[in-house]
Amino acid sequence: MDLLKKIDRPEDLRKLPRTQLKPLADELRAFVLDSVSKTGGHLSSNLGTVELTIALHYVFNTPEDRIVWDVGHQTYPHKILTGRRDQMPTLRQLNGISGFPRRSESEYDTFGTAHSSTSISAALGMALAAKTKGENRHAIAVIGDGAMTAGMAFEALNNAGVHDDINLLVILNDNDMSISPPVGALNRYLARLMSGKFYATAKNVGKSVLPAPMLELAKRLEEHAKGMVVPATMFEEFGFNYIGPIDGHDLESLVPTLQNLKNLKGPQFLHVVTKKGQGYKLAEADPVLYHGPGKFNPAEGIKPATSGKVTYTQVFGDWLCDMAAHDRKLIGITPAMREGSGMVQFEQRFPDRYYDVGIAEQHAVTFAAGMACEDLKPVVAIYSTFLQRAYDQLIHDVALQNLDVTFALDRSGLVGADGATHAGNYDIAYLRCIPNMVVMAASDENECRRMLSTAYQYKGPASVRYPRGAGIGAQVEKDLDTIPLGKGEIRREGQHVAILAFGTMVAPALEAANELNATVANMRFVKPLDVELLKQLAQTHEALVTVEEGSIMGGAGAAVAEALAEAGIVKPILHLGLPDRFIDHGDANQLLAACGLDAKGIAAAISQRFGKGEPRLVVNN
Amino acid sequence: MDLLKKIDRPEDLRKLPRTQLKPLADELRAFVLDSVSKTGGHLSSNLGTVELTIALHYVFNTPEDRIVWDVGHQTYPHKILTGRRDQMPTLRQLNGISGFPRRSESEYDTFGTAHSSTSISAALGMALAAKTKGENRHAIAVIGDGAMTAGMAFEALNNAGVHDDINLLVILNDNDMSISPPVGALNRYLARLMSGKFYATAKNVGKSVLPAPMLELAKRLEEHAKGMVVPATMFEEFGFNYIGPIDGHDLESLVPTLQNLKNLKGPQFLHVVTKKGQGYKLAEADPVLYHGPGKFNPAEGIKPATSGKVTYTQVFGDWLCDMAAHDRKLIGITPAMREGSGMVQFEQRFPDRYYDVGIAEQHAVTFAAGMACEDLKPVVAIYSTFLQRAYDQLIHDVALQNLDVTFALDRSGLVGADGATHAGNYDIAYLRCIPNMVVMAASDENECRRMLSTAYQYKGPASVRYPRGAGIGAQVEKDLDTIPLGKGEIRREGQHVAILAFGTMVAPALEAANELNATVANMRFVKPLDVELLKQLAQTHEALVTVEEGSIMGGAGAAVAEALAEAGIVKPILHLGLPDRFIDHGDANQLLAACGLDAKGIAAAISQRFGKGEPRLVVNN
Repeated sequence: MDLLKKIDRPEDLRKLPRTQLKPLADELRAFVLDSVSKTGGHLSSNLGTVELTIALHYVFNTPEDRIVWDVGHQTYPHKILTGRRDQMPTLRQLNGISGFPRRSESEYDTFGTAHSSTSISAALGMALAAKTKGENRHAIAVIGDGAMTAGMAFEALNNAGVHDDINLLVILNDNDMSISPPVGALNRYLARLMSGKFYATAKNVGKSVLPAPMLELAKRLEEHAKGMVVPATMFEEFGFNYIGPIDGHDLESLVPTLQNLKNLKGPQFLHVVTKKGQGYKLAEADPVLYHGPGKFNPAEGIKPATSGKVTYTQVFGDWLCDMAAHDRKLIGITPAMREGSGMVQFEQRFPDRYYDVGIAEQHAVTFAAGMACEDLKPVVAIYSTFLQRAYDQLIHDVALQNLDVTFALDRSGLVGADGATHAGNYDIAYLRCIPNMVVMAASDENECRRMLSTAYQYKGPASVRYPRGAGIGAQVEKDLDTIPLGKGEIRREGQHVAILAFGTMVAPALEAANELNATVANMRFVKPLDVELLKQLAQTHEALVTVEEGSIMGGAGAAVAEALAEAGIVKPILHLGLPDRFIDHGDANQLLAACGLDAKGIAAAISQRFGKGEPRLVVNN
Repeated sequence: MDLLKKIDRPEDLRKLPRTQLKPLADELRAFVLDSVSKTGGHLSSNLGTVELTIALHYVFNTPEDRIVWDVGHQTYPHKILTGRRDQMPTLRQLNGISGFPRRSESEYDTFGTAHSSTSISAALGMALAAKTKGENRHAIAVIGDGAMTAGMAFEALNNAGVHDDINLLVILNDNDMSISPPVGALNRYLARLMSGKFYATAKNVGKSVLPAPMLELAKRLEEHAKGMVVPATMFEEFGFNYIGPIDGHDLESLVPTLQNLKNLKGPQFLHVVTKKGQGYKLAEADPVLYHGPGKFNPAEGIKPATSGKVTYTQVFGDWLCDMAAHDRKLIGITPAMREGSGMVQFEQRFPDRYYDVGIAEQHAVTFAAGMACEDLKPVVAIYSTFLQRAYDQLIHDVALQNLDVTFALDRSGLVGADGATHAGNYDIAYLRCIPNMVVMAASDENECRRMLSTAYQYKGPASVRYPRGAGIGAQVEKDLDTIPLGKGEIRREGQHVAILAFGTMVAPALEAANELNATVANMRFVKPLDVELLKQLAQTHEALVTVEEGSIMGGAGAAVAEALAEAGIVKPILHLGLPDRFIDHGDANQLLAACGLDAKGIAAAISQRFGKGEPRLVVNN
């Protein structure tokens, strides 16, 4: 690591002779592999961007020139070269550096990313800002081929292509993969471009085989073709100057190409081909497995998981297969999250009813709506944080028409190492205000399965939220039974205080209640809320507590407060849930505890407000 | 109207000989013009789709074949031909037919639309459902060139193009216009296609001028070009069979072209050129003016508006110009709503700081975020209902990075004739759960201006919501003064009951309070809520009432309830606001009254709950 240890900022890199870049790349790749194997994190994508990162910081004057990394999970080489080499052991840990770019972390992180397909919009904003302010800086978006399938990227291309006087460079990092293998027509198109036989080749063929007069004619035809048919590539049709594809691991073509592009005005588009996992044979062979591993021994590779607790994702995946076997109308839809959403087995067993639509959440939801119009029963598997990207489609296309679409919301609540960008904190608030929606929160694995069946059998839009990872270890029954709509259940009979717990908070609430001798209800439904149960609890207790793994603002607790007001019930109430701030990455259980959402925190908050046992009903008015 | 009056359903139309279609089109066009001039509604777009509508229902077997009309404001001819001719006088009125397609209104309305760019996704869902079920029906999406700029349309094209065995037809209705003139690279591209000189022409040139051996060579070159360069159009690159452009007012080319397309398998793309306002000279000359007129005399045309009350949209437009003159950092951004958002004057005065990004809300917000990173101060003017389309961008790109972007939310609350699809009912709920957001609601025109200045000067994401149309007629000061962050004001001192009113509900609350002798606070801020004022009101009153023109679920009333719980205050509270159901079109004031949100309704609800004067604090527990 003789070279790498001397690079504390890109300026140091820019002092190296070009001949040393390749050895530096080797060191950087080894460092990334070693580092990720010790902390866990994204691997394949970072091994793929080693040379591109070096070349960008070598050629461009960072941080004056702005690099926006789309998705941002490929920025470990960038972090290492921009002064954070020694912090890599803290990656994605509480108080450590983030696994994504963050403006607050470094001036080299020009734009926070994590969700996909935002980079061209942001970089265009920066490029036009530079023009407005008379600054000569460059704005560079680095975007993968998977991220290009999101419509937002096209919106940005469409807007960028008309400005012929900006310093904008879009680099398509084409590795033929999002997390799941790529889908759609665009990918086929990129594959054609990558075949390397297009326009330039046709020209050469013409020149070599034609006699002079025919050559002239061919040239005229070619000009016709070029001017009047279409330009060479789709990206040129959007107004970009297209260069590529070039080998994204070859510094000898990357550096001079970038140097040339740096001198051109107007929107530039560089098509770079890289390989996920490059340089680490195991990751090259299985980039999906090595997409986001935990800790592992690089010499041995990732070991098959020892049989841990079943995850909610697996519960969903099993349910989906079982329900599909039971009902031929079931259609499974994922926006590029086959593995993440537990749909690998479903795809294998029911390929005709499986749709991976790419990173295209808007389309996923309206596509499901179209299917529901035809009496099929679509299930959209989507992370809570990504449903934010299809919010209007949910309202306007699904709920307004009361269409029968089931939403399986994985990663609801805090997500741990991915941090604030991926937090599923808002779904309760943003879903329950929509008419016709049913909103459920699963308290254990078996209830999750029952709720999925309930949502599926409900004739309208219904959602089930469940957290990342494993639950409390409840036995999952194999049946497809449902639960009664809008009915909660009392899980513990106590005195004085009734805790109305939602989803994952049922377990810690029960533990807290044991200490306090409180009643606990598993409310199950955020909407429709079990108002009868609520009234009964209000009548038989002196105080109510709501607890949820979601934003207090507008959340399930607010739903309870609204229902009390509606019923004219006046009763002391305490809302526990996630606070009104973005919560950084870290171990999810630690983060929950820090928010007071473990058993100890729940008990403490209740005691503090109402006292232990006989409640001390402090009323401040 | 001899022909038209015989058409009660498309079956009747399909019995006509082709020669009668042109006279029918003339009758239908006259009927549309007459009808819209009496009810108000969309005009230009409907005059543009007369022939296309006739041709589609003539060639396809509706309703078995599914037509999905994108945006849906061009469906009056469709409504007239599908059994709703006699209901046209009730268009967009309370209990009348909708101005958009509605599944509940007719079996010919296969998919409810109103927001743009959803049609290809929905039609693809229908086409794949038909394939899954072994049905031979066709699914047809009719989409305008403006709607094509939204990324969602590209997501759908990208997904459709890989299915070579479906009956999907996408018709691009190219009229060179969204509501505002079109923008972006795609539009330039379509213009090139429309120049009419592309591939077919090049081929013909070759054939006519070349001797036989050269012809053979040219053919080979052409095949090279076709196979190895790129297909003829961008749409073919996406896997569609592209036909066009053809004249969308010429039934003699529309009908046979559609008949041919009907017999082809796989995704078909028909490029049709129409003219907005076709056949009515005044609308042809100014399709923007005639986009959505009120009632008018067709012989005279639309008269310049008599000087009515100033609208909130105008208040925003004036403020934007004044603040831009004051601060060179201000950037104005609209997603294709230059007229609707009151930015015509701003564009004229500050063209270098005006960005119409097309129908591309996601891009609009992240583009603004990019600008804010470079120390510019973007103002995004967007309807409440359309901000739903950029919800994730608001959370992930703006709020999470605490970037300084101002959101001017026009059309918040009920919107009247456009109905449930356009209702701005949810913004309070979906915005206030997001950390870092400031959420204001304007109670009159002058306060709206002050709030815009406040949002603008606030160093972070801030929104101001204001309703469609005119306000109470408050005098608007020309200064750029701000109001104190998070501070409400008491507008009326009364007894027993305190009404906490938000935005438009301040005026009727004051009127109701006069009757009840209640206190009224204009809360101004949904977030940060004025908790001190709330505590003070709670201490000095026996009961609290919240009232807002927004969803009760998760709304400003819920925010008040949460704050009371947080402060440990137990107090009878009544939440007034919009109910948990979608509210149909109709006169906005009538609709508000039906929801109990006029002075009378507010007073009645309070009296019912708390009695008049000395409150009757019925507590049900």
